Amino acid sequence: MDNNHDDGLVHAECKLWLAKNGGVFGEGLFQLLSRVAALGSIAQAAREMDMSYRAAWGKIRSAEERWGLPLIVTQVGGEMGGGAKLTPAAEDLLQRYRRLRETVDRFVLESFAEVFRDWQG
Amino acid sequence: MDNNHDDGLVHAECKLWLAKNGGVFGEGLFQLLSRVAALGSIAQAAREMDMSYRAAWGKIRSAEERWGLPLIVTQVGGEMGGGAKLTPAAEDLLQRYRRLRETVDRFVLESFAEVFRDWQG
Repeated sequence: MDNNHDDGLVHAECKLWLAKNGGVFGEGLFQLLSRVAALGSIAQAAREMDMSYRAAWGKIRSAEERWGLPLIVTQVGGEMGGGAKLTPAAEDLLQRYRRLRETVDRFVLESFAEVFRDWQG
Repeated sequence: MDNNHDDGLVHAECKLWLAKNGGVFGEGLFQLLSRVAALGSIAQAAREMDMSYRAAWGKIRSAEERWGLPLIVTQVGGEMGGGAKLTPAAEDLLQRYRRLRETVDRFVLESFAEVFRDWQG
């Protein structure tokens, strides 16, 4: 959850990620893979995130290695020519991450409201 | 929640903090203030956390200013002589933070188990 607006009232913020073998699947990889899915291209996804193509590929490759899970399929002509798409495993992981994040974000908001209901600070 | 052991299985990690006016009350300040409460001394609390006395004071002062909340009372003789203790407001904030963190940590564990129950990754 990113509560970037800070209106001077106390609020809770929460950062969530999945980890396996030291490989982290968090907001950055989630955003990157979501854009690859939408745009069909790692290069375009990287551009939208102000990352270099090399950095984006590195991030994806590293996650693939640590998680032992193929995330991206590059299509005929190579990535620059034919584009890229997510593997079914990556789509599934993305959906689960989104579901977990939304559930946790909602819970943090509710719990914060409950715990700080009568706060005098 | 810090799941520092990584047994090669996917798991969720979550970092939680409170924010107000750009001032953050997270795990670091929580640990520092808990130690001040237990040890009655900022200097000893800082030492236990491998921080300098100056860094510890700076962290506390900055939070006091941004939150508009006194957190520490230094006692007769100055901090180095007489020791330090938490204000009632700081004790209250610590308790609420701990309660929220424990609630959220438990929820993240449970939600992760639910969302990844049938994961094949």
